[in-house]
Amino acid sequence: MLGVCYYPEHWPESWWARDAAEMAALGIRYVRIGEFAWSRIEPESGHFEWEWLDRAIETLGAAGLKVVLGTPTATPPKWLIDLYPEILPHAENGAARGFGSRRHYTFSSAVWYRESARIVTAMAERYGESPHVAGWQTDNEYGCHDTVLSWGPEDLTAFKGWLRRRYQTPEALNEAWGNVFWSMELASFDEVELPVRTVTETAPAARLDYWRFASEQVVRYNEMQVGILRRLSPGRFITHNYMGFFHDFDHHAVSETLDFASWDSYPLGFLEKFPFSEQERTRFTRTSHPDVPTFHHDLYRGMAGNRFWVMEQQPGPVNWAPWNAVPAPGMVRLWAWEAFAHGAEVVSYFRWRQAPFGQEQMHAGLNRPDRVRSPGGEEAAQVGAELKAFGALPENRPSPVALVFDYEASWITRIQPQGKDYRHEEICFRWYEAVRRLGLDVDIVRPGADLSGYSLVLLPSLPHVGEAMLETLKTTEAVILIGPRAGSKTRNYAFPDNLAPGPLAELIPIKVIEVASMRPALHAVGGEVSGHAARWREWLETDLPALASFEDGGAAVVATDRVIYCATWAEGDLLSEILTTIALPKAGLVPVDIPDTIRIRRRGDLTFAFNYGTEAWTIPDAAAKRFLLGGATIAPQDLACWEG
Amino acid sequence: MLGVCYYPEHWPESWWARDAAEMAALGIRYVRIGEFAWSRIEPESGHFEWEWLDRAIETLGAAGLKVVLGTPTATPPKWLIDLYPEILPHAENGAARGFGSRRHYTFSSAVWYRESARIVTAMAERYGESPHVAGWQTDNEYGCHDTVLSWGPEDLTAFKGWLRRRYQTPEALNEAWGNVFWSMELASFDEVELPVRTVTETAPAARLDYWRFASEQVVRYNEMQVGILRRLSPGRFITHNYMGFFHDFDHHAVSETLDFASWDSYPLGFLEKFPFSEQERTRFTRTSHPDVPTFHHDLYRGMAGNRFWVMEQQPGPVNWAPWNAVPAPGMVRLWAWEAFAHGAEVVSYFRWRQAPFGQEQMHAGLNRPDRVRSPGGEEAAQVGAELKAFGALPENRPSPVALVFDYEASWITRIQPQGKDYRHEEICFRWYEAVRRLGLDVDIVRPGADLSGYSLVLLPSLPHVGEAMLETLKTTEAVILIGPRAGSKTRNYAFPDNLAPGPLAELIPIKVIEVASMRPALHAVGGEVSGHAARWREWLETDLPALASFEDGGAAVVATDRVIYCATWAEGDLLSEILTTIALPKAGLVPVDIPDTIRIRRRGDLTFAFNYGTEAWTIPDAAAKRFLLGGATIAPQDLACWEG
Amino acid sequence: MLGVCYYPEHWPESWWARDAAEMAALGIRYVRIGEFAWSRIEPESGHFEWEWLDRAIETLGAAGLKVVLGTPTATPPKWLIDLYPEILPHAENGAARGFGSRRHYTFSSAVWYRESARIVTAMAERYGESPHVAGWQTDNEYGCHDTVLSWGPEDLTAFKGWLRRRYQTPEALNEAWGNVFWSMELASFDEVELPVRTVTETAPAARLDYWRFASEQVVRYNEMQVGILRRLSPGRFITHNYMGFFHDFDHHAVSETLDFASWDSYPLGFLEKFPFSEQERTRFTRTSHPDVPTFHHDLYRGMAGNRFWVMEQQPGPVNWAPWNAVPAPGMVRLWAWEAFAHGAEVVSYFRWRQAPFGQEQMHAGLNRPDRVRSPGGEEAAQVGAELKAFGALPENRPSPVALVFDYEASWITRIQPQGKDYRHEEICFRWYEAVRRLGLDVDIVRPGADLSGYSLVLLPSLPHVGEAMLETLKTTEAVILIGPRAGSKTRNYAFPDNLAPGPLAELIPIKVIEVASMRPALHAVGGEVSGHAARWREWLETDLPALASFEDGGAAVVATDRVIYCATWAEGDLLSEILTTIALPKAGLVPVDIPDTIRIRRRGDLTFAFNYGTEAWTIPDAAAKRFLLGGATIAPQDLACWEG
Ligand SMILES: [Zn+2]
Ligand SMILES: [Zn+2]
Ligand SMILES: [Zn+2]
Repeated sequence: MLGVCYYPEHWPESWWARDAAEMAALGIRYVRIGEFAWSRIEPESGHFEWEWLDRAIETLGAAGLKVVLGTPTATPPKWLIDLYPEILPHAENGAARGFGSRRHYTFSSAVWYRESARIVTAMAERYGESPHVAGWQTDNEYGCHDTVLSWGPEDLTAFKGWLRRRYQTPEALNEAWGNVFWSMELASFDEVELPVRTVTETAPAARLDYWRFASEQVVRYNEMQVGILRRLSPGRFITHNYMGFFHDFDHHAVSETLDFASWDSYPLGFLEKFPFSEQERTRFTRTSHPDVPTFHHDLYRGMAGNRFWVMEQQPGPVNWAPWNAVPAPGMVRLWAWEAFAHGAEVVSYFRWRQAPFGQEQMHAGLNRPDRVRSPGGEEAAQVGAELKAFGALPENRPSPVALVFDYEASWITRIQPQGKDYRHEEICFRWYEAVRRLGLDVDIVRPGADLSGYSLVLLPSLPHVGEAMLETLKTTEAVILIGPRAGSKTRNYAFPDNLAPGPLAELIPIKVIEVASMRPALHAVGGEVSGHAARWREWLETDLPALASFEDGGAAVVATDRVIYCATWAEGDLLSEILTTIALPKAGLVPVDIPDTIRIRRRGDLTFAFNYGTEAWTIPDAAAKRFLLGGATIAPQDLACWEG
Repeated sequence: MLGVCYYPEHWPESWWARDAAEMAALGIRYVRIGEFAWSRIEPESGHFEWEWLDRAIETLGAAGLKVVLGTPTATPPKWLIDLYPEILPHAENGAARGFGSRRHYTFSSAVWYRESARIVTAMAERYGESPHVAGWQTDNEYGCHDTVLSWGPEDLTAFKGWLRRRYQTPEALNEAWGNVFWSMELASFDEVELPVRTVTETAPAARLDYWRFASEQVVRYNEMQVGILRRLSPGRFITHNYMGFFHDFDHHAVSETLDFASWDSYPLGFLEKFPFSEQERTRFTRTSHPDVPTFHHDLYRGMAGNRFWVMEQQPGPVNWAPWNAVPAPGMVRLWAWEAFAHGAEVVSYFRWRQAPFGQEQMHAGLNRPDRVRSPGGEEAAQVGAELKAFGALPENRPSPVALVFDYEASWITRIQPQGKDYRHEEICFRWYEAVRRLGLDVDIVRPGADLSGYSLVLLPSLPHVGEAMLETLKTTEAVILIGPRAGSKTRNYAFPDNLAPGPLAELIPIKVIEVASMRPALHAVGGEVSGHAARWREWLETDLPALASFEDGGAAVVATDRVIYCATWAEGDLLSEILTTIALPKAGLVPVDIPDTIRIRRRGDLTFAFNYGTEAWTIPDAAAKRFLLGGATIAPQDLACWEG
Repeated sequence: MLGVCYYPEHWPESWWARDAAEMAALGIRYVRIGEFAWSRIEPESGHFEWEWLDRAIETLGAAGLKVVLGTPTATPPKWLIDLYPEILPHAENGAARGFGSRRHYTFSSAVWYRESARIVTAMAERYGESPHVAGWQTDNEYGCHDTVLSWGPEDLTAFKGWLRRRYQTPEALNEAWGNVFWSMELASFDEVELPVRTVTETAPAARLDYWRFASEQVVRYNEMQVGILRRLSPGRFITHNYMGFFHDFDHHAVSETLDFASWDSYPLGFLEKFPFSEQERTRFTRTSHPDVPTFHHDLYRGMAGNRFWVMEQQPGPVNWAPWNAVPAPGMVRLWAWEAFAHGAEVVSYFRWRQAPFGQEQMHAGLNRPDRVRSPGGEEAAQVGAELKAFGALPENRPSPVALVFDYEASWITRIQPQGKDYRHEEICFRWYEAVRRLGLDVDIVRPGADLSGYSLVLLPSLPHVGEAMLETLKTTEAVILIGPRAGSKTRNYAFPDNLAPGPLAELIPIKVIEVASMRPALHAVGGEVSGHAARWREWLETDLPALASFEDGGAAVVATDRVIYCATWAEGDLLSEILTTIALPKAGLVPVDIPDTIRIRRRGDLTFAFNYGTEAWTIPDAAAKRFLLGGATIAPQDLACWEG
């Protein structure tokens, strides 16, 4: 189904009814509203103005639309900040980050926690049982604009409390952080400082704890909102709209109390933000890289309940990337169908109409500022019509491949990358891309998730392997492909006693005795599989034979019957050979032969195919297929769907 | 005539008389002094020491030289800063920018305004009617070192007052800034914050207002100085020396109360600061790009009274660019003649003698620190001799082409560039260059300036088109060539109701329905005219036929009989074809065929030609010409002047 | 002899004895301990815990090892910082640099000076006469992490005092700094500000004085520690471990009171920090550039007593460079022998065992965290065995070539580089490299050092030539090769009255009348010698003929019988020709023909050769040599030593 994000407070009330009617006509079912409207709901402390919002909800409901209400905590109003300036977050340099945009709060502020509860309660009391309200979105894009980690006095106070609860004694803290290293030992928790603004690097264990603390605060804050909504709005779903490629807090942990996760999909903007090569950025300027949206679909589907929404879908050019292209014709439609193919329940476009004012005035909508449907709006209307003809989509089924994605791993490798181009998000994405290029579906799962039923499990880079993770690896029957740095750190950011891969040595008999980060260059490796390696190399102590070796004879890939270890950052060619020659045969999986700009995806008993390239693609054996969308030949930026 | 900048306070008094005699001998008529001498004039609060300056002026006057007195407000002395630390400006990060260099004041400080009036009054009372004082320079290079926008408490106070006067009610402010967008609404002017140091972008309308406020403060501050000088120094001219490529305040508005504008011409330094390509920087290392100085001549001639001075002319290497070349032999002479050809009354070299100490000790002068004439000084002497032989230069005449240059347009596109290489200064410069390459003279005018009499009017990029601008476009009979983003914003930094080009839709029936900023690459466009486009592209709704189209058929250039619209950032090849094939024929103008390193310019009934290249150039039909300077063949870095 | 750095406080006491035994077995004689252990020695103010350290020293001593004790002042503990927060250094932006890593103190703090004296006294009283203590290291790596220049209130106070003592009157200060330049004149020393955080550049003379002040504080602080140790620990040596390529203070001045200098050699890390080209960095990734360690050996040997130690030697990958390679097999051994060949008394590896926790957990040791010898440890053991077989090494003899290296020259050219790629450290290094490529040994000496006995003296870049320096140049009989900018500044950062080369005009009759910094490009020069120039060019007034000229005829190289002046930044090809064609013949020196990856070095009557390349090298006339190490053919990353 389709949805849309709408801001009644941005438009004359006289426009609302026509807007609602046009939404319904376009095939829209859900309308998200309210998440930036605090100053209109409570224009001064304790004085609420509900009537306008009552009428807005009523108008939408009268048109047959369902409302998703956003709690407005991403935009605390000026009077609140003036009453309690301690709510403001602080930058790494120690300066307060002021009022004037959004997300200007720290999760550490007790006052903010209380005030958030107050406004959420007020909204939930007013609308929790409204027949037009289908569900809730908590806040908006936690972490956007670097707002998870704050570096001010409130944060230090909260951090001290967190450490006290975690470690009980300063001795335990000193031990965990290795404070003896440079006479950093503390005699009491009062002596703790924020791990920032020092002469050189602070203890990595301290930084990891600060990140965990900050992430847990997001979890606790969201739980607070969820608790209120559950109590006052029974039967309505609760979700949060995560932002793509933001890994500063643990989305899995936040999602535990949600009904499902949703996310905000801006494929063209992400193309500029993710570390793609300039060649890739130029090639995919108007389509985005094919795996950018789907990586997130597969990630967020795995968060809660095997369901997800796209809460915000790019409908045209955005305003926030270094360059902002107009999507190639067809992409606004294609992205929606990719989402459905990957199991999305709802694709909700951001936004109904381009705002002619404010920070995001250069961000397109389904309608132009002059109330005419935009090019993206036309494509959305096509999706609306196709969906109506299509009928219900089948259930999501598990994929044959699981990729373990760990937020903590991102923090660990960012704290000490050791090589400046070692990026956790990048290695995870490239492994995902390699499997998708072979036509296989992937579930992205958290460490410790049940791995039974999978044929192949991928661990691109997992420095800390906890007990639950180890247990699932030991019990699954899947083939396991492990990337570099796995098991190289303990919970307290130290070397395991047995060196890397630490606990994974139970799965494969190797020991990492030396590691190098390598400056940009490709290094040939060869053997049973061959290709190129870069960035990272490990020297192994093992009796296993090398399946691929560096030119000096050092092993690059080794394997047991069921477990494969890659002791380097494998480039695409090597990764592809490891998969096709070693991993897939072991796992009993068969790759699909598709061009590199085609992607296929199965949902239930349907197969979807998408063309991100510049040339038409003809599906093999098309005559035997029953097409529900498209046909034997898929034009650029078009798609097809068939049974089976 | 020639001038020079001189600092008697830097040299032993015993040197002054010989210096003055040598100036006169070299052909110098004007000597600018005093603008950094506050600590010598008023060494402690209220205690003035005029005698040394009396003697310096007397010595210069006795040699037949005329003095231009600079008010010394660019360098408030330490005792003043210690008395009133609130004078200091503040950086964007909120830190005070301290004493120790120059321009350490904010225009927002009421104390500073009062103290400036006090020192200007004192100087004007002392020298306002001196027979040796020909005129005044207010302050020095407003805006240099990023000193227009200051971000401290004084600035916030002044900004609140400005907003109160402008908007009267907070409701009007909220409306103008679109504060409803993210609950940024304010209940009173006391709640206003500086639009800086926030979590993400602040409202663009707020930032534009802050820039206008800051620019108006410069205007008001300069008016204060001008008012005092007019009153106490009757009959003397008043000017200000603007710095090249500094667009943080509105030079047109500041110039309204001046007799004429002057500017500081450092062609080699600007080559490194302006966003030229590395190829251009290497090619023009020792000559600068031919259009860098002349762009400014044509700009500042249009400020006030159809006259201008070069107040500071580069005489050799400077000290402040990333690399500082020695000008190619001939350039110090050539630059002076280019200025005269473009209508300069005086070219004043900076500085008489290279200082052997202080921040600018690596900045050349007409003399070396050891009192010997420098290579640049020799060329200046040649200009002096040539001028003497030449006699009076004719009056400036209007050019056939007007280019509209708007400072506010620079602010608007810097606030939201939308594409990171969209630079207002660059598109204006490239349009200017394209016309100059065709041998045509250009007047650079402000929006709203009278456009009658021109054959061709250029609007390279004018996002906000005010009523006066629109009126002059509607009444001129000139052909009008309009570049991208024109009319795309209202006064309050919003979309016009009818979308871009807003009010310009009265001139040409088009509507911009979508825009893309494009990552670095060239895109071919073709049709009646062809070439390449880059950076920016608009999709038009129009019935006009495309004169050039993108490969996907979208229009790049459209035109009516009299108005041409370019819906993209045209590269040089495309721009040249638009001019020669469409605009010039419509305007009845004929281009002159010159190599790309030759520039010609008419002043009155004279024609000048300049050779910036590496090969000699022979003037066509030279036999028929009467040469006043040079002859039929112009050597590299040489020039010629003929009648007609 | 070999040494090692050891941290008993990082390991269970039960491991100490085995560690000590294994050290002795490996051939280690010296063990440096204690320099980061303050929090264990004095866990709270005034409460000392010596027993553990007593036992550690005893354990090492019992194994026949000698202890080098580090004073623990690089890591003031938290309780001390909390008592006296004014100890913290301040960044250029004015913010305190906090507790949590190391070197968090400013040399300006009187309290810190007193507290440092207290802890050094306590340690020296306890261990000064211990039979196991062979010597002392003061503090650790002065200047590391940019800790020489601090920018806080304590620093301003100290700076004012220093200026008062130096200049006596504000008039003298104003004169020295050229404060008249921009009305920067001060009426009293109280008005002085730190030369930072201003609108634009501050007076270069002020910045140079601030650097001198800061450097002298390091000297004074080190002298304080040395004084205490001399008094309480008679007969023990005192050294400091300098860090490579850190030039923020004058190492020569600090070394005056030491018995010898030592330094910390991390060749692979330095390869990434020094401005090598990317090609060089890739080529030498696993060996480092051959001249990186030896430049420092030759520099630090010249500090005090014609002796030096390598106090920390890289034993494998480090953790702090952008990329951290594993040294090529053989390099850990080769680097030790290079040090010995250059006169090192002791090469001490950092560290005994890789720490599994803390900031440097990715820094290799001679042992792995799991107590197994690392690959680097194996190579160190080979060196230990070879040293035992080798017997005593001969005395160091003076080299034929002296290169004058001046720390102040680094400050001067960093304060006003004039061209952004003019780097003092780089020109000195490249001149050193050029001579070493010709097989000649080099002594690196301070300005004013006795130059008698040398055949060739190099002054790559010496802007300020003091009286002592001039005197040694006038009295030496050596040929003198002078690079650009020589003698271009007075002591007060001004032009000399006679222009550059100032006092050196007594040696060679030239005057520099104009200078250009040149953007990146190679400029051909030719004549008796030819090659390429870049970055910097001077125009000379001289009657000397040009030995090489630029294409426009300007002189690039001129010479008298004994003095050669290079008026540009000579690239390697030109520099090599100047040396081989002009300088060496004049000096009576003969170059040795070696490939560019081979280096040779004589110590006493021995010659060493080292192969940094990828191919074996066969020594000419090998049959006639008696080899003490290796033989006629040197494999890559191997070495040989022969008599004669
Ligand atoms: Zn968003
Ligand atoms: Zn200037
Ligand atoms: Zn170190």
